[in-house]
Amino acid sequence: MTEVIVLNGGSSSGKSGIARCLQAVLPDPWLALGIDTLIEAMPASMRSSPAGVEFAPDGQVSVGPEFRVLEAAWIEGVAAMARAGARVIVDEVFLGGAASQQRWQKALDGLQVLWVGVRCQGVVASGREIARGDRVTGMAASQADLVHQGVVYDLEVDTTHTESLECARTIAARVG
Amino acid sequence: MTEVIVLNGGSSSGKSGIARCLQAVLPDPWLALGIDTLIEAMPASMRSSPAGVEFAPDGQVSVGPEFRVLEAAWIEGVAAMARAGARVIVDEVFLGGAASQQRWQKALDGLQVLWVGVRCQGVVASGREIARGDRVTGMAASQADLVHQGVVYDLEVDTTHTESLECARTIAARVG
Amino acid sequence: MTEVIVLNGGSSSGKSGIARCLQAVLPDPWLALGIDTLIEAMPASMRSSPAGVEFAPDGQVSVGPEFRVLEAAWIEGVAAMARAGARVIVDEVFLGGAASQQRWQKALDGLQVLWVGVRCQGVVASGREIARGDRVTGMAASQADLVHQGVVYDLEVDTTHTESLECARTIAARVG
Amino acid sequence: MTEVIVLNGGSSSGKSGIARCLQAVLPDPWLALGIDTLIEAMPASMRSSPAGVEFAPDGQVSVGPEFRVLEAAWIEGVAAMARAGARVIVDEVFLGGAASQQRWQKALDGLQVLWVGVRCQGVVASGREIARGDRVTGMAASQADLVHQGVVYDLEVDTTHTESLECARTIAARVG
Repeated sequence: MTEVIVLNGGSSSGKSGIARCLQAVLPDPWLALGIDTLIEAMPASMRSSPAGVEFAPDGQVSVGPEFRVLEAAWIEGVAAMARAGARVIVDEVFLGGAASQQRWQKALDGLQVLWVGVRCQGVVASGREIARGDRVTGMAASQADLVHQGVVYDLEVDTTHTESLECARTIAARVG
Repeated sequence: MTEVIVLNGGSSSGKSGIARCLQAVLPDPWLALGIDTLIEAMPASMRSSPAGVEFAPDGQVSVGPEFRVLEAAWIEGVAAMARAGARVIVDEVFLGGAASQQRWQKALDGLQVLWVGVRCQGVVASGREIARGDRVTGMAASQADLVHQGVVYDLEVDTTHTESLECARTIAARVG
Repeated sequence: MTEVIVLNGGSSSGKSGIARCLQAVLPDPWLALGIDTLIEAMPASMRSSPAGVEFAPDGQVSVGPEFRVLEAAWIEGVAAMARAGARVIVDEVFLGGAASQQRWQKALDGLQVLWVGVRCQGVVASGREIARGDRVTGMAASQADLVHQGVVYDLEVDTTHTESLECARTIAARVG
Repeated sequence: MTEVIVLNGGSSSGKSGIARCLQAVLPDPWLALGIDTLIEAMPASMRSSPAGVEFAPDGQVSVGPEFRVLEAAWIEGVAAMARAGARVIVDEVFLGGAASQQRWQKALDGLQVLWVGVRCQGVVASGREIARGDRVTGMAASQADLVHQGVVYDLEVDTTHTESLECARTIAARVG
């Protein structure tokens, strides 16, 4: 039985929409947690400091040591939720590519995980970033390819020409 | 010179995203105001009363006399903003079709208005409604065709297969 | 009959909470509109540009010429809503003190207006700014006294030691 | 060393504001997680179903079996985050009083926990609920006393007459 679904993709690639659609189409209740949940849980001061996370005007995101400490504990906690019986959809941005995936792989060891790459052409994701209006411009473009470097998936979906709900159905068909 | 752009479409058809993209691509600064702004400005009690506006569990929206009074004044006010020199994008849901358009036409009399229909196939809009996760399910489907009945446009865009930014560029090309 | 209530106070002084309480205690439906509504309606790019509005890291807010143009039209439009029959609560931050009030006075000429000062000690407003977590730190302190300079009120309330609902009841008692 | 701070109080008692102030005044970075985070992570359909959580028009909140399953796993996960090195502020509403506390006590066994009661007179919390404008009316009143029944605290604060920041400082003084 699939216990964790990890959705990895760049900003504005459509991960959160797919997560909500997955919650709607999967028969069991799943928790949806993600990098946005973690950042929201951090002190406000860490959302704009070199030790925490910084969003440059050009959309570059950099992460510091205090962020890493809290993130490591967060990952352990999400894994523990899955071990305790919650099925969990993780909505992530692997800024470090393969290295980011390894952090999660280590924590999720022994759990049945479905690794899903959520792709979206940079130019399309950039347009959606403008349409959302609440994100730093440039994140979508700078992350579109970066986050997939060296990452290994069970399944990839592409929201460039496919709706979130259809992507969710494709993923749901692979959930055991 | 175009002074007002009216975007009319059903819930989850993509109007707000197009409005934000229009603000980004048009050279002058435009205000974006819409039915959501009006509802937000109303007393909380009116957002769930027969005299105000009611959202039924199946997505049907009904509007009462107190809503109509405030809405009429709101429309006059938005027209006055345009007459006072602000270029305005209006993001609307013409639940009453042609009758709704006439309300706006009357208030905007003498102004240069670009009427834009924002279409989206009901099944696609319904999927996006699920992906958004913050709307009453069923609104998208019930409004998809209804809001266009008898409405006359200068231009129509369809977000079913076209991105918001591309729709915005099509509209911007028609802005004088 | 009072047609417009203008609430003027610094950031985190409690204006929006009082506005919502006024909507709940006043027998008629009132629209609540404010500076936050206007800023939200502006293009995203104007929310961080010298021509629009800029929020410095120390909480100073500066406003440029494009902001002024849209604001002037906005004020005219809100006045027109009141003339068209909507009773309106305006939630404002008079960064220019008396000069800001004059802008509104001119537009609201002929309407019955209740001018309300919403005071809150700077140190208390600063604490509430931290508790909210979504505002630039320092705005509350820098605006606490500034926004009242030279402004003339019919009534003043002080949220330092008085709840929003009680302030709203005091104001409502003066609404004709 | 205090590893977890549990803030328990009724709706609109001021817990979230205190949590944000604690994050600002405590020298180390703390994660703030709470019942709102959990509800947000659940499928939209569970936020209005007997099996999930239901908010009655009078403010009564009832919780069903599917909610309990996800909540139990969530609690385990938050405890695991603390064991993995994140200091965590938990913002909770013990609808079941002592029974709710026992669920957390069991999960947090072995960790240094500071149990904090956040009190607010029902009539004041009800007024703040109106001022917030985004909560079901009646929750504040119905929960004000209920959530403290049989719960044992290391420390209690009361936001009726004390600001969030001052409450946070009182709590911070007890954090080892």
